[in-house]
Amino acid sequence: MIFRQLYDEETSTYTYLIGDEKTKEAVLVDPVIEQVERDLKLIQELGLTLRYCLETHIHADHITGTGKLRELTGCEGIAPENAKIICANRLMKDGEIFKLGDIEIKAIATLGHTDSHNSYLVNGDRVLTGDSLLIRGCGRTDFQSGNPGLMYDHVTQKLFTISDETLVYPGHDYRGYMVSTIGEEKQYNPRFVGKNRESFIAQMNNLNLPNPNKIAEAVPANQKCGEVESMAKI
Amino acid sequence: MIFRQLYDEETSTYTYLIGDEKTKEAVLVDPVIEQVERDLKLIQELGLTLRYCLETHIHADHITGTGKLRELTGCEGIAPENAKIICANRLMKDGEIFKLGDIEIKAIATLGHTDSHNSYLVNGDRVLTGDSLLIRGCGRTDFQSGNPGLMYDHVTQKLFTISDETLVYPGHDYRGYMVSTIGEEKQYNPRFVGKNRESFIAQMNNLNLPNPNKIAEAVPANQKCGEVESMAKI
Repeated sequence: MIFRQLYDEETSTYTYLIGDEKTKEAVLVDPVIEQVERDLKLIQELGLTLRYCLETHIHADHITGTGKLRELTGCEGIAPENAKIICANRLMKDGEIFKLGDIEIKAIATLGHTDSHNSYLVNGDRVLTGDSLLIRGCGRTDFQSGNPGLMYDHVTQKLFTISDETLVYPGHDYRGYMVSTIGEEKQYNPRFVGKNRESFIAQMNNLNLPNPNKIAEAVPANQKCGEVESMAKI
Repeated sequence: MIFRQLYDEETSTYTYLIGDEKTKEAVLVDPVIEQVERDLKLIQELGLTLRYCLETHIHADHITGTGKLRELTGCEGIAPENAKIICANRLMKDGEIFKLGDIEIKAIATLGHTDSHNSYLVNGDRVLTGDSLLIRGCGRTDFQSGNPGLMYDHVTQKLFTISDETLVYPGHDYRGYMVSTIGEEKQYNPRFVGKNRESFIAQMNNLNLPNPNKIAEAVPANQKCGEVESMAKI
């Protein structure tokens, strides 16, 4: 398997490129519109063909690259079940498995940051957690139908029950961490350690964070796979 | 082996944490002074003990965390042979091998960015290239006794001759790439592809880059392992 983590500095977003070495098919998870040229160049240099863009959820902080990539390559856009992404070619529900050559990508519905959100377990040894579990943190739950109780339930019951050695690759990081493990997060994530459901909810309801800069533009654009009206055709 | 790549966003610097799972000894390669607390916390959480800080070279764009880490942990500072780092506990020359438990770290002198610079080949399958070979780029050669001819010779003769599958982990990246391979860089690095020694030198002599913001402060501080006069004792 080819596996590459890529970073968008403006929004601290991680995009993941997964490629099957035999079929040369590739999927991009959570691409960012400003990085489409970089990502396509790398895919081409690695001898891969982009077949799918996979979203963990409808992002509020950046515009997805999926629409642009689909236009340029003919790839399919895949989104979580119940995501209000009217343009998705396919939806993935909890537990559904998606094959890319020999690679197995399993959707794990991890709600709470938004009301439709998948983590993706790749070949059983690494999980892309989007904006649910972050490294020593978690996604906020105070807009876009966020729900701190569901965040607590799904992280502790669905992610923390995967084996401790599983690598955790988040959708964002703001402190320079790239990867963690389930074992580490169970032991050291300050949002969860020593918290029960009630105290976790109280904590999340008192973060008082400002809205992301791009929320007004990003959410409606991402519901249309990143097709923004101001976007020049390329 | 525990292997973690860490990022300092202000200076786009990568620090590498390498830990031996048996002895629990750890080395930090190219730590950044502002990230010392983050790095020590992670080392502690992973159950490791910091034994060494390893420098690829005297940095001009950030101040090393080595002095502060040595003061806090009693670890040793290791620098490349000929580096004018008066405080180093030990120097590593070209070809020298350093063992951390079962992990083998081999110095490969890759000059050109500065007149003392080591890349480090870790367990034969990944090379930390500092500011010599970068992903689709290379370090500048226009200050600190830089030498574009040596950069060309050492990258093409010493790094491009390692096996194609070897992972390349650079000292910096400015576009969101984290890792590459020797094979990819031989095929796609625009600084080297289609260039001979002469055209490479001409290219490097015409980059006309501004000096790094911190050069006046960083170089003398790094010659003393990051012990800056204005640094408050912690």
